[in-house]
Amino acid sequence: MEHALKDALERSAVVLCSGGLGPTFDDLTRECASKVLKKPLIFSQKILDRIQAKFKAVGRPMAAENARQAYVLKGASPIINSVGTAPGQIIPVKAKTVFLLPGPPSELAPMMDSTVLPFLRKKSPNVFSKTLVLHIFGYPESEIDEVIEPVISRNWNSPGVAVIFGILAHRSIIDVKVTVQSKSSAADRKVLADIRKALYGILGDKIYGEDEETLESVVGSLLKKKGLILSLAESCTGGLLASKITRIAGSSDYFHRGLITYSDASKIDLLGVKHQTLKKFGAVSEETAREMALGCLKRSGSNWALSVTGIAGPSGGSKEKPVGTVCFGVASRAGVKTFTKHFNYGGRAQIQERAALTALDTLRKAIRL
Amino acid sequence: MEHALKDALERSAVVLCSGGLGPTFDDLTRECASKVLKKPLIFSQKILDRIQAKFKAVGRPMAAENARQAYVLKGASPIINSVGTAPGQIIPVKAKTVFLLPGPPSELAPMMDSTVLPFLRKKSPNVFSKTLVLHIFGYPESEIDEVIEPVISRNWNSPGVAVIFGILAHRSIIDVKVTVQSKSSAADRKVLADIRKALYGILGDKIYGEDEETLESVVGSLLKKKGLILSLAESCTGGLLASKITRIAGSSDYFHRGLITYSDASKIDLLGVKHQTLKKFGAVSEETAREMALGCLKRSGSNWALSVTGIAGPSGGSKEKPVGTVCFGVASRAGVKTFTKHFNYGGRAQIQERAALTALDTLRKAIRL
Repeated sequence: MEHALKDALERSAVVLCSGGLGPTFDDLTRECASKVLKKPLIFSQKILDRIQAKFKAVGRPMAAENARQAYVLKGASPIINSVGTAPGQIIPVKAKTVFLLPGPPSELAPMMDSTVLPFLRKKSPNVFSKTLVLHIFGYPESEIDEVIEPVISRNWNSPGVAVIFGILAHRSIIDVKVTVQSKSSAADRKVLADIRKALYGILGDKIYGEDEETLESVVGSLLKKKGLILSLAESCTGGLLASKITRIAGSSDYFHRGLITYSDASKIDLLGVKHQTLKKFGAVSEETAREMALGCLKRSGSNWALSVTGIAGPSGGSKEKPVGTVCFGVASRAGVKTFTKHFNYGGRAQIQERAALTALDTLRKAIRL
Repeated sequence: MEHALKDALERSAVVLCSGGLGPTFDDLTRECASKVLKKPLIFSQKILDRIQAKFKAVGRPMAAENARQAYVLKGASPIINSVGTAPGQIIPVKAKTVFLLPGPPSELAPMMDSTVLPFLRKKSPNVFSKTLVLHIFGYPESEIDEVIEPVISRNWNSPGVAVIFGILAHRSIIDVKVTVQSKSSAADRKVLADIRKALYGILGDKIYGEDEETLESVVGSLLKKKGLILSLAESCTGGLLASKITRIAGSSDYFHRGLITYSDASKIDLLGVKHQTLKKFGAVSEETAREMALGCLKRSGSNWALSVTGIAGPSGGSKEKPVGTVCFGVASRAGVKTFTKHFNYGGRAQIQERAALTALDTLRKAIRL
């Protein structure tokens, strides 16, 4: 840690450290910074009072260990932690500045917004930077890379304007990231709008959302805007699809019920799937997916119903239906469509994840027009 | 990247790099290593053939970009990637060794097991290291730190044996980590067993699992061992609890159905919750949780049923029932118990997560004896 801090200070005018401000014996960032920056740790009664008040407010005794969080480096300004107990610290080091920030994202993010970003903005008043992230589901990274190559290789730079492209695959989602840096926010916006248009021209409907959007937030917004109610019948995704939908605040406006029908008996009882269908085609079949979706639609009285039934593995596969075989049903008052996907790499969790995202993306395409 | 690689090589005899071996323009680890280690990149037809075969096997055309993955540093030995397309590389640098490894955990982990760990073991035949991680749910980190302090501060070291303790809080789970390093694996095991005993002596039932175990895997094993069937009635967790249960391979042995009853009407229809109960006590009440659990138990014919109903927020809270109020029901043939928790920090996702884990940990304690 000492080496890393020294190294960062050599390279940069501002160093952000996150984590290691907790109360336990292995939270050592304060001590490390104190040693490297040669500034002693000073006890602050004011900070201790604040920590004790936090514990009192939630009706818990404060452990003695938490007193460690009341120490700040000499000359440092504390940053109030609105969520947890550890304050952040701003430490001037000659012309440079070191920030000590908490590790948990819920504590870090408010400090970034309230203190660190305004500090950086003030330090560089003439540097503007704007980032756009486009999200794509269900296509290989190398394919997306290939088709957008003409946009990336075009020369977007001009005096005072620099463009940086990035492409990142995490699981089955591809993010195309564009950052424009310039000396005026108007130039930023103009260049970014042009690039956005060029990328949509190539990728179109493959892009399901931008920036903070997720498949479930985009689908949720569409359902809400159109006043539609969705219900779910899940087998192999086992609640993951419903969990994604209900992660979104306000999802009760468009999602009222979901059925996790993991066994054959529950598919019959809860969705009205016919015993013969299960016997003849199996639980993992488009025929079963069709009856699951239709039964779910009818019994819930919703506008749309999605069904998912498949083999998430690692066991349960056969030659005809290997692990990764997943059947989907999408039902609305207009009728029902079914299809099958073969997720032929990744383990159980990845198959479940891709099945849930496939269902969401299919619904998005079905209701978006 | 160049700076980081140089820096690591100065400090260490073995350097592991992970990530940046993908096919796209911003995957630069190969080029970076080539430059720092002054070894040119050489095209390998054999590796290209293997990548092409992978694409053929899944019936997809290979994008031209993937050919970038067929380059290895001069003198490097490739490591076969059994999951993805990018091979790893072992690069001897005088007496030191640099490994280039893929970033996705599903590709990285098999290479660690097959190649990197055996390499390290061979390099240090007389160093043994064994780690134990104990998992605890629902207690503050500082409290756990305080009670285990006597174990941590005891002197476990002896000639040739070094013990390292760590404690890590992520969300509402605390991990206590103990690593023993020694010159014989027998000594390792003995010391680790003694420390384990001491920690269990203090923490007891608070520990829900060890090492790779999760709350859902522990609960699943208990249900399976005892031949019990679980069913779920979820409101505010919206499928998250079922999703955790079904993440475990083989969960169909003990989980057959789950109901996500997000609306009042679905609680009445699917679980038989009484209209009057909802009207008099509200959807978020122990009375509703009780009827949800009992209705779920009865209609599913399972041995145990869990219900969760609460206010995940950000809106929907009131003075009497603020955001974070969650009511639980645990029903078995022996009867039903209900209780209420107030999760008074964290956002929607954290409240849902803690509610799901609380339900699992409550069930664990109920069935473990």
